[in-house]
Amino acid sequence: MSTPPTNNVDRLNPNVRGLRQSATLALKCRCDELKREGHTVYDFGLGQSPFPVPMPVVEALRAAAREKDYLPVKGLPRLREAVAEYHRSGDLLDVDPAGVIIGPGSKELMFLLQLVYNGEILVPTPCWVSYIPQGKIIGRRVNLIPTSREEQWKLTPERLRRALTVVRDNRRPPLLILNYPANPTGATYTPGELEGMAEVARRHRMIVLSDEIYGRLHHTDEHVSIGRYYPEGTIISSGLSKWCGAGGWRLGTLVFPPQLDWLTNALAAVASETYTSVSAPIQHAAIRAFEGGVEIDQYLRHIRRILSALARSSGEILNGAEIQTHLPSGGYYLFLDFSPLRAQLAGRGIRDDKALCNRLMHEADVAILPGSVFGRSKDELTARLAYVDFHGSKALEASARTPLAQELPGGFADRFCGRVTRGVECIAEWVGQMPYPPDMPRREGRVVVAAGT
Amino acid sequence: MSTPPTNNVDRLNPNVRGLRQSATLALKCRCDELKREGHTVYDFGLGQSPFPVPMPVVEALRAAAREKDYLPVKGLPRLREAVAEYHRSGDLLDVDPAGVIIGPGSKELMFLLQLVYNGEILVPTPCWVSYIPQGKIIGRRVNLIPTSREEQWKLTPERLRRALTVVRDNRRPPLLILNYPANPTGATYTPGELEGMAEVARRHRMIVLSDEIYGRLHHTDEHVSIGRYYPEGTIISSGLSKWCGAGGWRLGTLVFPPQLDWLTNALAAVASETYTSVSAPIQHAAIRAFEGGVEIDQYLRHIRRILSALARSSGEILNGAEIQTHLPSGGYYLFLDFSPLRAQLAGRGIRDDKALCNRLMHEADVAILPGSVFGRSKDELTARLAYVDFHGSKALEASARTPLAQELPGGFADRFCGRVTRGVECIAEWVGQMPYPPDMPRREGRVVVAAGT
Repeated sequence: MSTPPTNNVDRLNPNVRGLRQSATLALKCRCDELKREGHTVYDFGLGQSPFPVPMPVVEALRAAAREKDYLPVKGLPRLREAVAEYHRSGDLLDVDPAGVIIGPGSKELMFLLQLVYNGEILVPTPCWVSYIPQGKIIGRRVNLIPTSREEQWKLTPERLRRALTVVRDNRRPPLLILNYPANPTGATYTPGELEGMAEVARRHRMIVLSDEIYGRLHHTDEHVSIGRYYPEGTIISSGLSKWCGAGGWRLGTLVFPPQLDWLTNALAAVASETYTSVSAPIQHAAIRAFEGGVEIDQYLRHIRRILSALARSSGEILNGAEIQTHLPSGGYYLFLDFSPLRAQLAGRGIRDDKALCNRLMHEADVAILPGSVFGRSKDELTARLAYVDFHGSKALEASARTPLAQELPGGFADRFCGRVTRGVECIAEWVGQMPYPPDMPRREGRVVVAAGT
Repeated sequence: MSTPPTNNVDRLNPNVRGLRQSATLALKCRCDELKREGHTVYDFGLGQSPFPVPMPVVEALRAAAREKDYLPVKGLPRLREAVAEYHRSGDLLDVDPAGVIIGPGSKELMFLLQLVYNGEILVPTPCWVSYIPQGKIIGRRVNLIPTSREEQWKLTPERLRRALTVVRDNRRPPLLILNYPANPTGATYTPGELEGMAEVARRHRMIVLSDEIYGRLHHTDEHVSIGRYYPEGTIISSGLSKWCGAGGWRLGTLVFPPQLDWLTNALAAVASETYTSVSAPIQHAAIRAFEGGVEIDQYLRHIRRILSALARSSGEILNGAEIQTHLPSGGYYLFLDFSPLRAQLAGRGIRDDKALCNRLMHEADVAILPGSVFGRSKDELTARLAYVDFHGSKALEASARTPLAQELPGGFADRFCGRVTRGVECIAEWVGQMPYPPDMPRREGRVVVAAGT
């Protein structure tokens, strides 16, 4: 009588059958295991900020430790005001606190947005690992728009226009997901590029989910939002995870324009039946983070300088090893293209990106994620490297010794972010050990392609 | 070109059209507004613990304020171990930490469980406000099983068996949601009753989602889980919100048996694409809460004694006013049945529970929730009263002056939980002001129906 059913798969929602844990999180678990077993792993998998949460924000959390009330679904009014002001002053956007929703991570908010909006999804690839599975879980049609390395893996108005021909639903405009500075490529858009896409989006009344969680980590602090050019149809996503180093705190934000209040309210209704509200002590502390101030500004300027220096030094090593990568404009990712080494890799039995990453893990002690988890074909031989395996506090302390108006001294990366340099060198060495096909000319020099902005 | 679409409803997922914010949370907002405007409101709407988070747990949160890492999807290993031990020692259940999942509130976890499990839902009514809308959002068929006041609003094995005849899907066993001590009735089950239901559930291979979030608030600490009788098919839901006073912290737990690991893993996979993991500082603090100890035990014993005394005194006042209510076995709710007053209410133009609650709000300054939001017919004239509008810290201090072996002194409720007594009296007075139909005999005396356990 108590025999378990013979076919459990049949008892699962068809949309979740075969779904596995998010690749980034799964790789983190694997790395933690390897470390526990005493192995060396250069952990470039999970995109977690290596920097500590700024002290004023930590103090604010301590002060709020007794806060225990269920908070309003859309978030604490003072926090929503602080988030609105953060976008008004930082992004020059006309944001009303009434359009702000606080959620337990922007990932959850994006999931609920896709759940409530009844349209097809458009996603340029490579893209963040969760957009595609989220659409699948909900049962939405997700249309991928491949971009090319030659165009810095960026969407263009022309590609966007052409992508509309594959959208089947003619009654409802699609939801376009843009992410810049981008995960996994670090690329971002110029104002002109954003204007071009805004025009296409407006003509077709698209909803644009603009994931700007890396906005404040633009290496030269020149982030511009598409909300400047398409305010009435743009929803901006952000949160504490990246610029504030508080990924584990789980606080994300969405900002809706008043024209989309029907969507804001539908999302809040579903939120009230799912996550309810974000943890009260965390929301109270987040007010301090979004209100910002000199201390947090300084923190951000140091972080940007460190990330930019690391991107440059790592990119040089990789390009020198004939792995193609663009210099990122923001964030802490390098998107690697191993296709120039296709013949050598094939000589080692490596024909797709998963095999490549597995072998790098076992033979070079480096954990990076295959491009296929970012929506690219596995045969392309791409991978994402998150250059975050260093001690953020120590790097910040060291950076504090060089005035912000100056560049960091040469060798900063080697000295204070040594694991990143060593890990990247491990990749280069591993590549260098491959026998060179005799009929291929060996490239000379180190070339770093400069990013557009 | 930038005209907004004419029909926004059509752009919403059909399952969420017309969905509003959870009734409990919406009423809380309304009460907060009224209070800000200077009105008196006895706020018996939201089921939020009035007690503070125990100090050792608050201290643990302060100590964890720097924790910033993304944690494993299923939760911190030490926390999962603490939760397993909490159920092993407190509920005498054989729980493996591998079956524990930590989420941002049990509400979110239950939502994801219904999302991944591909079966119909069975819910006895009255039931907690969110089970039905959750099923609807996901698109599950939700089968309600009405219970009766005469049976203390409790499900019986016989009613459960009969309910199976309305389940349309013959291929997959349904998911039965049980909740005890219950929201909104405070009722719980005897071991014999649980055994009877376990037998039916086992025969039909049901999954039982046993929502035991009020388990530790059983007024005489005699909570028993159906997991004792149907371990292989029972998933137990709990969290910090009720017994630990930390509703606003948003930490819930699910405990799966090893036989359902296929479901555990599917849920974790969806979690990794939605909420990711629960806030790190909160998880670290929760270890302290679930590990318990003398201080937390004492806290719980005082809370139970206060809630029990309040239930008794409030129930007496209400029954004296001919509003029917059972003495709850646990939690902090009274489920009121105004049907004996149907004729008088009709004389005031009140024919359903929403009108009743609206009028009570405006004429008696009391906020309670209509039974229809708990899945009952609006004509039945039922409502839930959450007797939580008092200063929990002060009540705890006062309770500390009476040894736990004794009962609280007479008048404790009036003195230390005065707003509850006054609010309940307001309801009784409001009822008393209604003209009595001449052909109805006036009942005498105060009768409190004793609960089964």
